[in-house]
Amino acid sequence: MEVQVMEDILGKNDAQAAENQKVFAAHHIFALNLIGSPGSGKTTLLERTIAKLKGDLRIAVIEGDLFTNKDADRIAAHDAPVIQINTSGGCHLDAVMVAEAMQKLDLDALDLVIIENVGNLVCPAEFNIGEDQKAVVLSITEGDDKPLKYPLIFKESAAAVLNKIDILSYTNFDMESAEHDIHCLSPEISLFKTSCIKGDGLDAWCSWLKNAVAEKRK
Amino acid sequence: MEVQVMEDILGKNDAQAAENQKVFAAHHIFALNLIGSPGSGKTTLLERTIAKLKGDLRIAVIEGDLFTNKDADRIAAHDAPVIQINTSGGCHLDAVMVAEAMQKLDLDALDLVIIENVGNLVCPAEFNIGEDQKAVVLSITEGDDKPLKYPLIFKESAAAVLNKIDILSYTNFDMESAEHDIHCLSPEISLFKTSCIKGDGLDAWCSWLKNAVAEKRK
Repeated sequence: MEVQVMEDILGKNDAQAAENQKVFAAHHIFALNLIGSPGSGKTTLLERTIAKLKGDLRIAVIEGDLFTNKDADRIAAHDAPVIQINTSGGCHLDAVMVAEAMQKLDLDALDLVIIENVGNLVCPAEFNIGEDQKAVVLSITEGDDKPLKYPLIFKESAAAVLNKIDILSYTNFDMESAEHDIHCLSPEISLFKTSCIKGDGLDAWCSWLKNAVAEKRK
Repeated sequence: MEVQVMEDILGKNDAQAAENQKVFAAHHIFALNLIGSPGSGKTTLLERTIAKLKGDLRIAVIEGDLFTNKDADRIAAHDAPVIQINTSGGCHLDAVMVAEAMQKLDLDALDLVIIENVGNLVCPAEFNIGEDQKAVVLSITEGDDKPLKYPLIFKESAAAVLNKIDILSYTNFDMESAEHDIHCLSPEISLFKTSCIKGDGLDAWCSWLKNAVAEKRK
């Protein structure tokens, strides 16, 4: 019975995710589901991305958090539309939550919607929320063993961002080993090495986003 | 109905957790549930703790991971008994998994069992597994906003370990703010600042464990 209920939950979620995807497609919006551990740097990456791209793309953010509005406040300071979802302790966003947030956005006025999921490398990987693609952010301070320890999110993602490379030399992170493992899990993945604090690697990441938006407009 | 099933799952888990706790108590073992994000440094903390305490305490580790044995191999290299639990993608340990692992340990020959939960700051906080206490490990590279963003685990924990302080000066982590927030969430919590790489702060942490074991023996 418990398995049946889990299938019902996933089935309902997938149906709503398909609806969300249709709505994004009707508005020619590229929707990205951004996933990573607590403190991997998702929100800082978003802040830098918005600052770099706001002349080129019309961007909105949907922020998933357990309780607080801290991240949404940071995005709002960059003059981008932002909708906060509080999961009240729930460990991932689901498609119904995202559908409600989408209703509060002026979708006709957007090219790119980035949905920052709850800080968690496990559960968010299991739930589609209507995105075109997933991207995973891994801070190099988390260790080079993490791709093999949390393989699903790397398999599911179209892009992986290895963040905080400015402090690489103060850690024992083996970049070659991490890259190897990520490419074993996902040969086609686009890999970016960034320091959101120093600005390194952000141009390549932003080009990837611009290409994804251009593809969606075709 | 979904709520009912969730209550059933939690109810069954709590019943098994109470059983596990009785077994630990009968053997005068202090059992610690160690929780933190991927890459917070839980396994390295365990390696250093075992190295420091193995003359004083008989320690075993139960390792929770999604798929791999990487962490268990690291513990085994320190000559401590270690049992690996693979959750096959599950985002937290539960009391039934821990009960099975306990059967593989010689409980008469142990003082301290540390259970390293799956790397996740959300779901493990919600499931008791038969521990005496929870401890949370937060890497300072994750950011000082994390206690308020993930409050449950800080409220539930008897100890908090702020790890990787050797690279504090390369981050924008505000120690005063983090300590303030942690003490607001949990006024009685024991707080440790450690660098598992350099060895800082480990004596205080190990003293806390030794006291906890001594209390359990009374």
